[in-house]
Amino acid sequence: MTMDYAREILQGSPRAVARLMSWLEDEDERAYPVMEEIYRHTGKAYILGITGSPGAGKSTLTDKLTRTIRRKGLSVGIVAVDPSSPFTGGAVLGDRVRMSELSIDPGVYIRSMATRGFLGGISKATADVVKVLDAFGKDVIIIETVGVGQDEVDIIGLADTTCLILVPGLGDGIQSMKAGVMEIADIFVVNKADRAGADQVVAEVCARVDQDSHIKVKDWTPPVLKTVAVEDQGLEELWQAIDGHRAMLEKTGKLHEKRRERICNETLRMIHNELFRVVREQLQDSGQLDNLVTDILDHKRDPYSIMREITGKWISLPQHQKETS
Amino acid sequence: MTMDYAREILQGSPRAVARLMSWLEDEDERAYPVMEEIYRHTGKAYILGITGSPGAGKSTLTDKLTRTIRRKGLSVGIVAVDPSSPFTGGAVLGDRVRMSELSIDPGVYIRSMATRGFLGGISKATADVVKVLDAFGKDVIIIETVGVGQDEVDIIGLADTTCLILVPGLGDGIQSMKAGVMEIADIFVVNKADRAGADQVVAEVCARVDQDSHIKVKDWTPPVLKTVAVEDQGLEELWQAIDGHRAMLEKTGKLHEKRRERICNETLRMIHNELFRVVREQLQDSGQLDNLVTDILDHKRDPYSIMREITGKWISLPQHQKETS
Repeated sequence: MTMDYAREILQGSPRAVARLMSWLEDEDERAYPVMEEIYRHTGKAYILGITGSPGAGKSTLTDKLTRTIRRKGLSVGIVAVDPSSPFTGGAVLGDRVRMSELSIDPGVYIRSMATRGFLGGISKATADVVKVLDAFGKDVIIIETVGVGQDEVDIIGLADTTCLILVPGLGDGIQSMKAGVMEIADIFVVNKADRAGADQVVAEVCARVDQDSHIKVKDWTPPVLKTVAVEDQGLEELWQAIDGHRAMLEKTGKLHEKRRERICNETLRMIHNELFRVVREQLQDSGQLDNLVTDILDHKRDPYSIMREITGKWISLPQHQKETS
Repeated sequence: MTMDYAREILQGSPRAVARLMSWLEDEDERAYPVMEEIYRHTGKAYILGITGSPGAGKSTLTDKLTRTIRRKGLSVGIVAVDPSSPFTGGAVLGDRVRMSELSIDPGVYIRSMATRGFLGGISKATADVVKVLDAFGKDVIIIETVGVGQDEVDIIGLADTTCLILVPGLGDGIQSMKAGVMEIADIFVVNKADRAGADQVVAEVCARVDQDSHIKVKDWTPPVLKTVAVEDQGLEELWQAIDGHRAMLEKTGKLHEKRRERICNETLRMIHNELFRVVREQLQDSGQLDNLVTDILDHKRDPYSIMREITGKWISLPQHQKETS
């Protein structure tokens, strides 16, 4: 059964891919054996991150860039991360509708991710979905995400090359840009470059790139490109810049370094999430959490001692056992 | 020693408070026993959330609102959350400088929080700092935070009343506002209301409040207020609206409900964070992670089976033991 799903995915069944992705998003345990099975077939795709403020035109740019990449004969997976509503819990319908033209191309697979309510859920689920698309054989995987909170930084950390999309006149000049946002970019893209103020944004970014040793690193000075995605302008140049960044990463051994670090973080995160999932289920399903909260509200107990008791009792570390025996 | 810190905080020593807060931010284990000790003295403060886009004037508004609250004879704690740099790791100096006039008032305690690199770190640290200020005896605690990512939603979830600060002409009209952002507001504040377009923003928000059943809830229709914080205009009205919201929450039992839910989430989050700390320490510090990652890169192992193996080995649930014995 499990083997069947894994085999179907490796053989290119979009139906099996969709099923596995749903399991992953729902934290359904049936996903794990399939992931184990397909894991060895990952690591071949090149992973692109597209990020920027709402209204920067990321979706259109992703759309047009995908067409550019398809013209090179490469297949594309798109993971659109919608960091929005913890209240509605759903991916925005527009994403799916917007991409309808692409979605009939069998060389393109699009997945919208909804934010789940729980801690670390979205970055873990995104990492897993990227792996599925990788095993599925997509040559390039584009992760499209909004803004830069901690979740988004984690998500963008999955990418080999990250493009930060800026736009003139959105009120988010470089001046007001939060520290840390500029540093994640390997390539800057000033989209809607036919608008007034585009050259000024380009100049500001160039100046900043030149000054900031966190942005302009050894072996790589992030280029600042202009695009008009709706008009399909500048996408070819963007793809070439991405290719240039990839070549640098491969030549300097940085790609291997990046991927090693990513596996390291992912493994930690997976173990952590699984431990928490098990503990949470235990607390919630047994009604224990309800009783504990009542005790806390009645000032009979405090969450700190509960935390220590639970992590102490429920987790038994191999080394710790050795020390105490 | 621990008792001393707890006692000093309860007796009003700002030095002891500062020390404990540093421990909390650094995840220093010495913080735990103090937190356990002071926990029973929390739950008295009223917690306000102030959020909005960069440039909305949140800092000035927080500043002026604090003076208004001080004139009522109430003490104030301010937690300024700087969601910025996972790279620089530092709070923006400006915050501290800006508030210097307030900071000589012994009835006001200001703390700027820097984002730490770690999962759930900022929201956990903020929750803890709010508790310290609560035990410290502050009547009102204001949490000031930028934008709305998952971290910020978690942080705003700490507040009893949340004010969303909007501003005319910042390019973030209601239209472009992400789903979920409007819903967090109990009170809308159009700041810089002397600017052109203020009335339009007010009208847009009012229309939206009226239509959206997620915003206009039973027992409460979020008011839309105008302020000019720099000119000290509208702050008295804002404070009255906050007081009105508080009265509604108390009357309907919603305050108790909110706090119950918050404790529930907080307890889970604390366990979540503690588990991560344990995992990181155990795997990273022992060098075990490095070996595992090498195996993964060599395709000898996969992270999923490692995750299953480790969680299987480490977790021993009370009920599970019962079932299998």
